[in-house]
Amino acid sequence: LEKDVDDAVAKVEKIMGAKFGDEKNPLLFSVRSGARSSMPGMMETVLNVGLTSKTIPGMINQTNNERFVYDAYRRLIAMYSDVVMEKAAGIEPADGHGIREQLEHELEKMKKARGFNFDTELTAKDLKELIEIYKAKVKSVLGKSFPDDPKAVFQSWMGKRAISYRRIENIPDDWGTAVNVQTMVFGNMGDDSATGVAFTRNPATGENVFYGEWLPNAQGEDVVAGIRTPNPINKAGKTEDTTHLTSLEESMPELYKQLDDIQNKLERHYKDMQDIEFTIQKGRLWMLQTRVGKRNGPAAVAMAVEMCQEKLIDKKTAIMRVKPSQLDELLHPMVDPEAEKKAKELAKGLPAGPGGANGMIVFTADDAESWAKQGKTVILVRNETSPEDVHGMHAAAAILTAKGGMTSHAALVARGWGKCCIVGCSALQIDSAKKQLSVNGELLKEGDWISLNGTRGRVYKGKLGLVEPDLERNKYYKQLMTWADEVRELGIRTNADRPEDAAQARAFGAEGIGLCRTEHMFFDPERIMAMREMIVAENETNRRKAVMKLLPFQRKDFYGILKAMEGLPVTIRLLDPPLHEFVNLDAKQIKELSKDLGISEEKLKARVESLHELNPMLGHRGCRLGIAYPEITEMQARAIFEAAADLTKEGVKVYPEVMVPLTGIFTEFENQKAIIDRMVQEVMKEKNVKFKYLVGTMIEIPRACVTANEIAKTAEFFSFGTNDLTQTTFGFSRDDIGGFLPYYLVHNILPNDPFQSLDQNGVGQLVEMGVKRGRSVRPDLKIGICGEHGGDPDSIDFCHRAGLNYVSCSPFRVPIARLAAAHAAIQNGPQKK
Amino acid sequence: LEKDVDDAVAKVEKIMGAKFGDEKNPLLFSVRSGARSSMPGMMETVLNVGLTSKTIPGMINQTNNERFVYDAYRRLIAMYSDVVMEKAAGIEPADGHGIREQLEHELEKMKKARGFNFDTELTAKDLKELIEIYKAKVKSVLGKSFPDDPKAVFQSWMGKRAISYRRIENIPDDWGTAVNVQTMVFGNMGDDSATGVAFTRNPATGENVFYGEWLPNAQGEDVVAGIRTPNPINKAGKTEDTTHLTSLEESMPELYKQLDDIQNKLERHYKDMQDIEFTIQKGRLWMLQTRVGKRNGPAAVAMAVEMCQEKLIDKKTAIMRVKPSQLDELLHPMVDPEAEKKAKELAKGLPAGPGGANGMIVFTADDAESWAKQGKTVILVRNETSPEDVHGMHAAAAILTAKGGMTSHAALVARGWGKCCIVGCSALQIDSAKKQLSVNGELLKEGDWISLNGTRGRVYKGKLGLVEPDLERNKYYKQLMTWADEVRELGIRTNADRPEDAAQARAFGAEGIGLCRTEHMFFDPERIMAMREMIVAENETNRRKAVMKLLPFQRKDFYGILKAMEGLPVTIRLLDPPLHEFVNLDAKQIKELSKDLGISEEKLKARVESLHELNPMLGHRGCRLGIAYPEITEMQARAIFEAAADLTKEGVKVYPEVMVPLTGIFTEFENQKAIIDRMVQEVMKEKNVKFKYLVGTMIEIPRACVTANEIAKTAEFFSFGTNDLTQTTFGFSRDDIGGFLPYYLVHNILPNDPFQSLDQNGVGQLVEMGVKRGRSVRPDLKIGICGEHGGDPDSIDFCHRAGLNYVSCSPFRVPIARLAAAHAAIQNGPQKK
Repeated sequence: LEKDVDDAVAKVEKIMGAKFGDEKNPLLFSVRSGARSSMPGMMETVLNVGLTSKTIPGMINQTNNERFVYDAYRRLIAMYSDVVMEKAAGIEPADGHGIREQLEHELEKMKKARGFNFDTELTAKDLKELIEIYKAKVKSVLGKSFPDDPKAVFQSWMGKRAISYRRIENIPDDWGTAVNVQTMVFGNMGDDSATGVAFTRNPATGENVFYGEWLPNAQGEDVVAGIRTPNPINKAGKTEDTTHLTSLEESMPELYKQLDDIQNKLERHYKDMQDIEFTIQKGRLWMLQTRVGKRNGPAAVAMAVEMCQEKLIDKKTAIMRVKPSQLDELLHPMVDPEAEKKAKELAKGLPAGPGGANGMIVFTADDAESWAKQGKTVILVRNETSPEDVHGMHAAAAILTAKGGMTSHAALVARGWGKCCIVGCSALQIDSAKKQLSVNGELLKEGDWISLNGTRGRVYKGKLGLVEPDLERNKYYKQLMTWADEVRELGIRTNADRPEDAAQARAFGAEGIGLCRTEHMFFDPERIMAMREMIVAENETNRRKAVMKLLPFQRKDFYGILKAMEGLPVTIRLLDPPLHEFVNLDAKQIKELSKDLGISEEKLKARVESLHELNPMLGHRGCRLGIAYPEITEMQARAIFEAAADLTKEGVKVYPEVMVPLTGIFTEFENQKAIIDRMVQEVMKEKNVKFKYLVGTMIEIPRACVTANEIAKTAEFFSFGTNDLTQTTFGFSRDDIGGFLPYYLVHNILPNDPFQSLDQNGVGQLVEMGVKRGRSVRPDLKIGICGEHGGDPDSIDFCHRAGLNYVSCSPFRVPIARLAAAHAAIQNGPQKK
Repeated sequence: LEKDVDDAVAKVEKIMGAKFGDEKNPLLFSVRSGARSSMPGMMETVLNVGLTSKTIPGMINQTNNERFVYDAYRRLIAMYSDVVMEKAAGIEPADGHGIREQLEHELEKMKKARGFNFDTELTAKDLKELIEIYKAKVKSVLGKSFPDDPKAVFQSWMGKRAISYRRIENIPDDWGTAVNVQTMVFGNMGDDSATGVAFTRNPATGENVFYGEWLPNAQGEDVVAGIRTPNPINKAGKTEDTTHLTSLEESMPELYKQLDDIQNKLERHYKDMQDIEFTIQKGRLWMLQTRVGKRNGPAAVAMAVEMCQEKLIDKKTAIMRVKPSQLDELLHPMVDPEAEKKAKELAKGLPAGPGGANGMIVFTADDAESWAKQGKTVILVRNETSPEDVHGMHAAAAILTAKGGMTSHAALVARGWGKCCIVGCSALQIDSAKKQLSVNGELLKEGDWISLNGTRGRVYKGKLGLVEPDLERNKYYKQLMTWADEVRELGIRTNADRPEDAAQARAFGAEGIGLCRTEHMFFDPERIMAMREMIVAENETNRRKAVMKLLPFQRKDFYGILKAMEGLPVTIRLLDPPLHEFVNLDAKQIKELSKDLGISEEKLKARVESLHELNPMLGHRGCRLGIAYPEITEMQARAIFEAAADLTKEGVKVYPEVMVPLTGIFTEFENQKAIIDRMVQEVMKEKNVKFKYLVGTMIEIPRACVTANEIAKTAEFFSFGTNDLTQTTFGFSRDDIGGFLPYYLVHNILPNDPFQSLDQNGVGQLVEMGVKRGRSVRPDLKIGICGEHGGDPDSIDFCHRAGLNYVSCSPFRVPIARLAAAHAAIQNGPQKK
């Protein structure tokens, strides 16, 4: 590479008409990002490159400012040793012990020794001394001398991290470092110099006021890196804490006026909020950079709506300005960002349920429930959760698990409720028996407070404050969603199993239920006994007797949910999980149950064992249950239709859609549809009432996609269950991907977790096939999606393109889905159907 | 239905110009099959319908043969009460207690009382008396009187079994019973009358001699039903046991001559062996029926070849005359059919490995091995088998399991070896601890003899004789296979893991190995320790060290198998099963292993537990192993290539094809191919030798089919693993289908077990997609199939149509596959590629 470096240097020198290291006329430059942005440590800037022991005198001559040159040089040492010598080389120091932090420490030591408050008080002599201290430190910490060669920075191209990054990304070595040649200006040339960063609107609130920070006699890095506390840029930006600081508006009013004019011009030109950097060198304002500014969710919404109202942008642009994921911040309570900065981080996990929460640790679902009843706020901490924990999960303010992924039981349930949840937090070592856990050296016991940031997957020690959202009073949000609803074509439904959730989703704008799971309804203690009785029954008569005990409960469930969704369609999926999930019993429970059911323990144990499956995901579940045990389907269909009949009589409009799970063969569906149709005829006759209903199926097995034309002959709607379809299409068990998926993501074997964002290339092709073949025999086939992907913006974009009628997602993702559907419509144009 | 019966009767009467029940001119008829052949009990014939108390006198008048009329009437009672009143009504009496058997018993009682040897000795008076006994018996056993109405037989259309059959088959009720109107002749009109059944060639051996049986003064049912022992039809058909019996040739030489002429004419006309029925009524020969005769495997082969040599048929017809499955009988030892008839049947199971065996029961693999070493013949009986049982399975003469399906571990392994095996024999209750089993009331202990008919899935008590095959000396078989090889287009490879199996398959005509699994090679005690060491290793260095211990073993394995297949391609699949299969340890083994490996029991236990998967079928296996642990792939690739290099140096031509399992994403394949290519380069350089090789992949995940165009860019061959592809396409775990698949088959939700015969409509579409998309980027892509379906004739037909290059199956199915491939070529014409 030596030659290449020389080539690069020669090119730059040719352009500049000057030489690096020229003692008379030194060339200073800055370097940014040697490769691509995802390359850690290489996006940072190194300023003042070109200063060496030889060029320093020339620079002092040129500027006539010795202090400035030594200040620039010590900055070069700090930045270069950090970005090139440490980060790009792949050295990973302990937290707080990076080379830059150690050099900062030396600076502070010197200030303290001199009795100074500000860096600017250091004299040229102080800085010269500091430079020697810096160089010695670099040598002792990194084992290498700080190079006295202006070309050294190009060597970062061969840094260990840079090389391994290129291997992964398949970037040829011979591309070399990109170089930007640009005249430098300096904000650290004295008190008539300054530097600052500003936003044309407030990026935290969206308020249309010029907002920023500045520092006199400083280089840009000081503001950005947070090493010195910057001053507000104007009087409007002052807060109670900063009234004593001088704003640029006050300190240099003329220059501030120039800057304000420029920022106005830039925003009008780019029609978006700008993030600008500027430097004042000896009383003259230089603009360094302008780019679209980052903003948080509430600010994005407010700016988009206001800019549209100001006629700066049109409605579609306003809609596109807000990323669907940014709405999350408007929907959930959040950990107070200020408190979070100061908090002790215990561990990281997967951000399974967004929002923030605090609470006392409990280790069992029962404890969660009983503590909550006593008015305590608790966080349920478990290795993983199961359907039997649901009552405790519901009672807890948040859920934290050591195992599981983004679509584990805990994650699914929590997201369904919009509950804060972190899963797969593998640093936790939970000892449920002792009711304690250890995490990265900390021992926490039942009752200790922790706080979770479920949006970022962070666990903190102690009770951090929360910030509550207030959607109802957010006029910007309401306006934006109205616009989104105007342009989107996809319907938005919700996945909800309980009337409360349904009502919540409806408030968020859901236009129906796309997936009402019925299995959770069976875990209630009153009901599970009947379920278990059914499971162990030895003949159809006893099984039917047991199943029919569940009828009144189920009817009540469906009554509630159909009523909550009055006037809207409700898709109810028949029983799906394998039966063994209902008889997951320990020895003691077997004993009790055998007594309750009046059968021998041995027989019960044998039955439970016979239900054991090697691959339950691919076992006796879904419609395979309703086919082998038609009385289950009969009971469920009857419960749905009786509830629908009762409501119809009460004048409530209902649109039940009965959904058969896990169809893979059209004969399976026909078998179940025959039962369901028979039930509806019976119920309508018995209750002497008529109502509309549909019978359709989940499409969640590859075979169903491939033979969708056979299934659609009798199925009146399809709903893609892309969770299971992803499992079967990839041959991935989402419970077992922990062994390889992280590796796959790091090594780019997969670009994304396919359980989070639909694998459009593989699973997507099967979905498209299912849509096409289904509609080939039933052109008006109603098609939706009810997997977790229904709330993922990229997947929603795909659903729009694939011609689906609706997506269904958990209640708290409904607004996100509405916005994402609007984005899809704008980006792709009208749907082909 | 009343009206329809009357209609039917009216029609028949109109055609006949006579009336049922007409006392003067009675109409007799016979009835066959009210619905379709799969309807149990309805294919049987009821003769002499039309005889009633009223028409009997008219019939006696007409025939002037009172004895004949009563004989005909008592036959009517026996047949009608059996076929219509009992079977079609769905009554299921205990074995040996059917109404017909009870009536036979009454007949025997009367013969004994009269001192008669033959039915024919009974007089008209005896028969009249017997008729009253029959009628009383019918009434007492079936609770209904024998009807005295000639039209009653039509009522069988509304029998319980007939109705439920029509419901299942969707046959409308109003189609009614089919009626054949035909003049009857009677073989029971005296000693100048007779009846018989004959074959134009011997259906048991294929020998070209007229072969059959006859009875004087009898009706056809007597011969077929086996109630009376019939006489040989000619002198050639006499055996040692039947020299005392009179043949038709001797008894009625003129009529025999007529019959012989007719049978010759019929065979020449139909160009196939005919199964004929005839009746002689008062010295005149009547032909009742001729149809293509059923034959066993050896006979089918012999006849086909001889008829072709006789120029009766052409080669293609000869090939089509033998069902591929019939070859099974030529390949395996069979239980002596005569011994089987008399043996005590203990239970039925699934016919997982064809052929017959006898042996002493053992309950563990170790016992099987040690008993076999002592020269004992044993049958290994287990609930199910695992890879650790393989040594015992190999030592046993046959394998019998209580659990598992046709593609369970036991079934796969046994079929691979051509070993007799019955699985899923659920009546077995095995107590391994006590070394005994109970089955349908019998208690059997270790060492007790049992015999298995693996072709039919029957378990017998005691030691039944076996009939050994002798392929080498079967000139017909050899000729047929030569013809088959001439016409087939599909290549035939074999699935073999050991040199012996490879050699066996080669002898059967295999043209290469389509699947050499490498995992079985790891279970050897010497090797499994290194494997386990690798699994528990905590870092790559230790893992690599442990893996490399396996290199010499693997190299030796591959050396052997490549050598055995000299000159032919050998596809070697890299490690596939999840790691936990290698550390399936009990507490004691954990203790020992922890000592051997020098790590704490706790740590070992934790590691073993961490490997546990909820759905191992969809877990960390296949190429996901080689990706996460590249050193495994390195070791295996190196072992293959070192063996190939050594053999090449020895002058042995080798064609290794390295196969990556479970690819679902093209990046997975690329990752593994890079390692394999690196290894081959290294080995060729080290050993200074060159040889041909290919790197390809299994296609066994739906996503691989859908994205085959991406995978084929780098993959040099595809091999469809239709076992796993069936599992993922259906979402069926083949280990867990026991809960619903039997129901599915009985209720026609599925026509076949998709693990036995490829689901062409679902899985097949994915295969076709994979072929089409793969060849779209690599037109000469070599494509095979190596699932169990590779040996199934229907699936082979599909493979031909789909344009595959070859099928691969277990050694003992190679001849079957060769013949099936010839059938496919004849039936479908040339392949489209």
